[in-house]
Amino acid sequence: MELLLRSPLDMHLHLREGALLSLVAPFSARAFAGAVVMPNLVPPVDNLARLRAYRAAIADAVAPYAFTPYMTLFFRPYDEATLAAARAAIIGVKLYPEGVTTNSAEGVRDLEAVEATLTLLERLGIPLLVHGESHGFVLDREAEFLPVYARWAERFPRLTIVMEHITTAAALEVLDAYPNLAATVTLHHLLITLDDVAGGLLNPHLFCKPIAKRPADRDALRAAALRAHPRLMFGSDSAPHPVERKEAAGCAAGVFSAPVLLPLLAGLFASHGALANLQAFVSDNARRIYGITPPDRTITLIHKPWTVPERCGDVVPFYAGQRLEWQVVDPLASAAIAGPGAAIQRGSAPHNPDAQP
Amino acid sequence: MELLLRSPLDMHLHLREGALLSLVAPFSARAFAGAVVMPNLVPPVDNLARLRAYRAAIADAVAPYAFTPYMTLFFRPYDEATLAAARAAIIGVKLYPEGVTTNSAEGVRDLEAVEATLTLLERLGIPLLVHGESHGFVLDREAEFLPVYARWAERFPRLTIVMEHITTAAALEVLDAYPNLAATVTLHHLLITLDDVAGGLLNPHLFCKPIAKRPADRDALRAAALRAHPRLMFGSDSAPHPVERKEAAGCAAGVFSAPVLLPLLAGLFASHGALANLQAFVSDNARRIYGITPPDRTITLIHKPWTVPERCGDVVPFYAGQRLEWQVVDPLASAAIAGPGAAIQRGSAPHNPDAQP
Repeated sequence: MELLLRSPLDMHLHLREGALLSLVAPFSARAFAGAVVMPNLVPPVDNLARLRAYRAAIADAVAPYAFTPYMTLFFRPYDEATLAAARAAIIGVKLYPEGVTTNSAEGVRDLEAVEATLTLLERLGIPLLVHGESHGFVLDREAEFLPVYARWAERFPRLTIVMEHITTAAALEVLDAYPNLAATVTLHHLLITLDDVAGGLLNPHLFCKPIAKRPADRDALRAAALRAHPRLMFGSDSAPHPVERKEAAGCAAGVFSAPVLLPLLAGLFASHGALANLQAFVSDNARRIYGITPPDRTITLIHKPWTVPERCGDVVPFYAGQRLEWQVVDPLASAAIAGPGAAIQRGSAPHNPDAQP
Repeated sequence: MELLLRSPLDMHLHLREGALLSLVAPFSARAFAGAVVMPNLVPPVDNLARLRAYRAAIADAVAPYAFTPYMTLFFRPYDEATLAAARAAIIGVKLYPEGVTTNSAEGVRDLEAVEATLTLLERLGIPLLVHGESHGFVLDREAEFLPVYARWAERFPRLTIVMEHITTAAALEVLDAYPNLAATVTLHHLLITLDDVAGGLLNPHLFCKPIAKRPADRDALRAAALRAHPRLMFGSDSAPHPVERKEAAGCAAGVFSAPVLLPLLAGLFASHGALANLQAFVSDNARRIYGITPPDRTITLIHKPWTVPERCGDVVPFYAGQRLEWQVVDPLASAAIAGPGAAIQRGSAPHNPDAQP
C-alpha cells in the first residue's frame, strides 16, 4: 500500500546551526518540499545578512534534496525600508514575547508597542507569525494570550496572523472567529497530553513549549486536523536538543519529531479514515494561506513497519524505539528509514505507548 | 536567634531500604523525633515479620538519635486477627490505589471492595492513611478522588482517615467537611507549583506525585499550614531517588526534602509572621490526631545561613545549592549541616529561586 503526498510542507521548524543543523536538516528535506524556518537562534536572525548566511547553511545541509527553507525574521521594531528590503527573502516575521521559550530572551516586552510595526507588515503584505503565550501559569499561557490575537486580528484585518503551535480548544475558537487568523499545529500536540509528559514517569523528551494540555484540547486539535480545517496548517515545531540537555536537571523544551512526522501523520489520519484530508493539512492549506509554490515533489509513504531509532546522532527522536506502520521512501536511497549523513543507533522500545495513534 | 521545637514529627516519609536507607535516614533522625514510615517497598510491607525487620533496619540507620519510626502496613484485605496482632506495631494502614505512584503496583484495584477491611480498622481504632488519587488526567487525580474520602468519612465516622499529601484547595474543603478526616501536606507543596516543575526548563528534581498544582492551590495549602489548621499535619513525603533515576528519560517521582525540612519551614513561617504556629503544625497536631507520644526531644534551629549541598550521596536534595537562612543544630555534632555518615558534595546554585519562601 502506498500513499502519495504532493510537496508536503512543515510550516514551523527549528533547524538550529552548525553540526546540529547538518544532523537534523536531512530528516526534514527527505520528507518535505519545504519548511518555515524559525529565527530564534543566538543571536536571533534579525537582519538580511544573517538571514542569507543562515539560508545558505541550510541549503548546504539539505542538499541534494529539492527543499525550500521559508525564512523568517525575528520580530524587531523594523522600519519600512528594512521590511521592504527583506520582503522577497522572507515568508514572515516571527514574534516572541520575551522569555517565553528557547532563545526568546530578546523577544517583545511590551505587546502594545509593536502595533506600528504590525501596520507596516499589513501594508507590505508580510505575514506575522506569533508564539502566543503569556507569562502566566504554564497551563494558562496560551489561553491568556488569545485576547491579543483577537485584538490584532481586529485592528489589522488585512494582516495574516499565524497562531503558531496552538495547543488548546480555546485557540481553535479564536481561530474560527477571525478570517485573517491562521494557525499551525504540531504532530505531538495531536498525539500527547500532559499525562504523557508527567502522568507516569516524567518524560523529558515530550517536554515542549507550549506544554501539552488536556485530553479535551488534544481531541479538539485532532478533530480540526483530521477534517483539514482550511486555516490550520501542519507545523511540526520539531526542536532538537542533545540528549544531555534533555535528560538533565534543567531540561530544555522541545520535541525532535522530524524523523517521524509523515509516518505518524499517515498512521493518525489512516486510523481515523481521514487519509483523504492529509494532503490539505500538510500542504494545500499552507500554499493557499501563504500563497507559496513549493518545489514540485511527490513524497511516497509505504505501509511497511519500521522501528524508530533510539538516537539520531546525540538527539532522541519522538517515538524513539517504537514501531511505526508507515515509512517515507527516501528518493535518494533504497534505505527508507534514515536521512543521509545521520548517525543512527537502533534499540528497543521506551515510554509513551499510549500516544501511538 | 534561636528557634526551639519540641519533638517535631514528619508524618509521611519514605526511608527506602539498604544503602539508600542508611544514607537518608540520618537526615530525618537529626531533625525529627519520629516519622510515619511508608510501606511501599518492593515487596510491600504487608506482614508483621517484614515490618519488624524493616523497623530494625531503620533503628540501625537512625542510631544513636532518639527517633521513633511509626510503622505502616501496606493495605491488603487483612482479616481481624491479623489486624489485631499488628495493631500495637503500627500507626496505621496505608492504602494505595493500584499504580498511582512509586511501587504501588500491588495497590487496590476496586475501591468498593475495601469496605469490609475499613470496618475492621474502625472497630480496632487503626487509622487509615490514603494516597488519594484517581487514574484520570494528572492534574485532576486528587480532585477526582475526593468523593471517595467523603464517602468513607460518612460510612466510617469513627475511623480516622488521613488524606496524605494533599495538593489542592478542593482537598482542604473536603477536610473541613468531615471531622474524622485529617490530612498531611508536604513542604514542597507549600512552596512550589507546576510552574516550578515545568514552567521554565523542566526540573525533574521537583517532579513528584501528586504533581504540584496551581498557585491558588499552593496558596490555600500554605494559608492552612501557617494558621496550623488543627487537622493538618506536616508530612514531608521526602522520597529519594538516585540522580540517575531523576535526570533520565523516565524520571521517577519524588522530592528528597529530608535535609532541608525544618530550615525551610522555619523560613516560610517566619516570613509570614507565623512562627508561633510552627510547633502545632510540625508536632502537636499529629500527637493529638494519632494519640502518640514521641521521644521528648528539643530541636534547635539557629538563624545562620548555609548552602544546601548539591548532592547527598547520589541523591539531589530539594533546594540543592541554594542558601537557606535557618539551620538545625545537630545534637550529635558541632557541624550543623550534614547528617552523620552522609557523603556531601558542595557546589553552586541551580534552579527554582522563585520557590524560596
